[in-house]
Amino acid sequence: MSPAPDARAERLAALAGEQGFDAIIVGDLVRPGDSGTEAMADVRWLTGFTGSSGIAVVGPEIRAFVTDFRYLSRVATEVPGSFEVVDATAEMIPAIAGLLSGRVGFDEAKTSVEQHRKLTEKLADGVELATVDGPVEALRRIKDADEIRAIGEAARLTDEVYGWIEEGGLAGRTERDVAVGAEARMRELGAEGPSFPSIVAAGPNGALPHAEPGDREIGRDELVTIDMGAIVDGYSSDCTRTLVDGEMSARGREIYDLVLAAQLAGLAAIAVGAHGRDVDAAARSVIEEAGYGDLFGHGLGHGVGLEVHEPPRLSKRSEDELMAGDVVTVEPGIYVPGELGVRIEDLVVVTEDGPLNLSTYPK
Amino acid sequence: MSPAPDARAERLAALAGEQGFDAIIVGDLVRPGDSGTEAMADVRWLTGFTGSSGIAVVGPEIRAFVTDFRYLSRVATEVPGSFEVVDATAEMIPAIAGLLSGRVGFDEAKTSVEQHRKLTEKLADGVELATVDGPVEALRRIKDADEIRAIGEAARLTDEVYGWIEEGGLAGRTERDVAVGAEARMRELGAEGPSFPSIVAAGPNGALPHAEPGDREIGRDELVTIDMGAIVDGYSSDCTRTLVDGEMSARGREIYDLVLAAQLAGLAAIAVGAHGRDVDAAARSVIEEAGYGDLFGHGLGHGVGLEVHEPPRLSKRSEDELMAGDVVTVEPGIYVPGELGVRIEDLVVVTEDGPLNLSTYPK
Repeated sequence: MSPAPDARAERLAALAGEQGFDAIIVGDLVRPGDSGTEAMADVRWLTGFTGSSGIAVVGPEIRAFVTDFRYLSRVATEVPGSFEVVDATAEMIPAIAGLLSGRVGFDEAKTSVEQHRKLTEKLADGVELATVDGPVEALRRIKDADEIRAIGEAARLTDEVYGWIEEGGLAGRTERDVAVGAEARMRELGAEGPSFPSIVAAGPNGALPHAEPGDREIGRDELVTIDMGAIVDGYSSDCTRTLVDGEMSARGREIYDLVLAAQLAGLAAIAVGAHGRDVDAAARSVIEEAGYGDLFGHGLGHGVGLEVHEPPRLSKRSEDELMAGDVVTVEPGIYVPGELGVRIEDLVVVTEDGPLNLSTYPK
Repeated sequence: MSPAPDARAERLAALAGEQGFDAIIVGDLVRPGDSGTEAMADVRWLTGFTGSSGIAVVGPEIRAFVTDFRYLSRVATEVPGSFEVVDATAEMIPAIAGLLSGRVGFDEAKTSVEQHRKLTEKLADGVELATVDGPVEALRRIKDADEIRAIGEAARLTDEVYGWIEEGGLAGRTERDVAVGAEARMRELGAEGPSFPSIVAAGPNGALPHAEPGDREIGRDELVTIDMGAIVDGYSSDCTRTLVDGEMSARGREIYDLVLAAQLAGLAAIAVGAHGRDVDAAARSVIEEAGYGDLFGHGLGHGVGLEVHEPPRLSKRSEDELMAGDVVTVEPGIYVPGELGVRIEDLVVVTEDGPLNLSTYPK
């Protein structure tokens, strides 16, 4: 994986200049000294930094990276030399404030009320903070060839785990046992880890879209929804299959075929320029027309990259428009409370020639 | 694990009343619909809820729980019946706003500028938002018997993994292999998982306090710092040992003995009423007097519970005072760049009779 952080910082600096900002702050201004992986995805994309504490300040005239002593040696190897490195071991906020001048953009979704207050207190005269809407998230949507290779490899590896699970058999094992085994297998195959805690939900548990794998023993002929993904070079995959060890009941088959039809309709609607809400509607209408609309209570899909949930959204209320280079899931489901659930999810790249499906495990 | 969430909500409601609040909002107001595990620790402690999307509103006259459709069935089994459940599948913020009246406390560290703005826009006339400083974090510091049992079991299990690692031998294995094996072993022994990505840092890598396990092969007679913890019933442990497969060099022994002396001095300073900065100083002065003060660049310790890092802090700048029921780490280290590192960490309960050490693996 070789991102091109210098080029990325240039794109962000250009965007800052266009929008009248002297600089944009990128990173986690909720817990700046001890950030979660998710909040650091912007920083990783922009600079290549893989640690958990670092803030970048980028504009036409500035390129600075603020971190603490734990990460100075990592910064030296990962972050391009064009960034001035600021050691803020004592406190991050005063160090950031000291870098700022003019009109400065911050991401209000990634800044806490507390850190905003502390930063404001430290600003020099004439410095103005203004919100800027997910500037890096927007740039991150368009994946380059290296990023697509990493996501594709993560998806391929997940497919391989599905095959391994089916070979081993499901009936008689607990949900938890299958989930733990799948995650270990992913690592054996070279993943950095699972991209989220794997879901293995059998029988009536399948009706809970976010069920945690439990001690329930999977029965023969029972529907089992498995939702999992792997991380490769920092990039995630995300795939769901509803499997059965034995024979599907007539009822299960009816629901399964309906979800599959909806999923195929969703995939067919993926195109450059398509609106997120229209792609959602293409799949949802299939389920609604069969009378199951109330049992599909979530959006159709979401972007995947350095985070397993990122823009764009495919949902009833989405205002996103698909672009070439978006990588999104297409995952309709029907959840019959107390009875069963079916969800089928593929991961696709949006291209000028239509969707490129990265999830090849049979449905 | 049977927390007593009703009693906990009563304590929070009493605290709200004392401080002149009609209600306090508890939960993640950074990403209210899709929260990280860490931000949900307050909610779990308060209500027993283990899902990833839920906000509690608690005051003398109100006890409400706002969640979305994915978690309604989980709320029914986990959250006490005294909470009114509000289904906010459409949008969390308007649902929360609709519950509020009078003076309402929010945690500025767990609220983003964006969500604060959106919540403010939806408030009824006369409702006032005011910051309240980590109200649940403060209550969470004092662990009850069930919580200490869970943390103690997580620590015991981690000790067992250390024994298993030493039996298997370290020399000739890669850092990554040891880390992956340790985490798998934890799960086999009954842990829900590791409480953070395990650190295995051999030779010069030991000088990086937050090194990631790599492909470096561990040498014979080489110092290896292993920092790991397990999760049991949602509660974490945290323990570090610096091991050697073979013989310690004279230089390694010198540093090791110094860190051990500092660690024992820190443990001896643990007492109800002791100040966090004084406990830090008790250990730090041992290292400083030997001339290695610059090579111990982090705080002495931190609280552990539902989060692996939580109040109180033992550090140079800590303003915390230890209370009976605090569970804290004591973990001095010396990091010699390019050469080696030693860190030794125990997890202890603060009691009226002094520290109760939960980490029993030999040092």
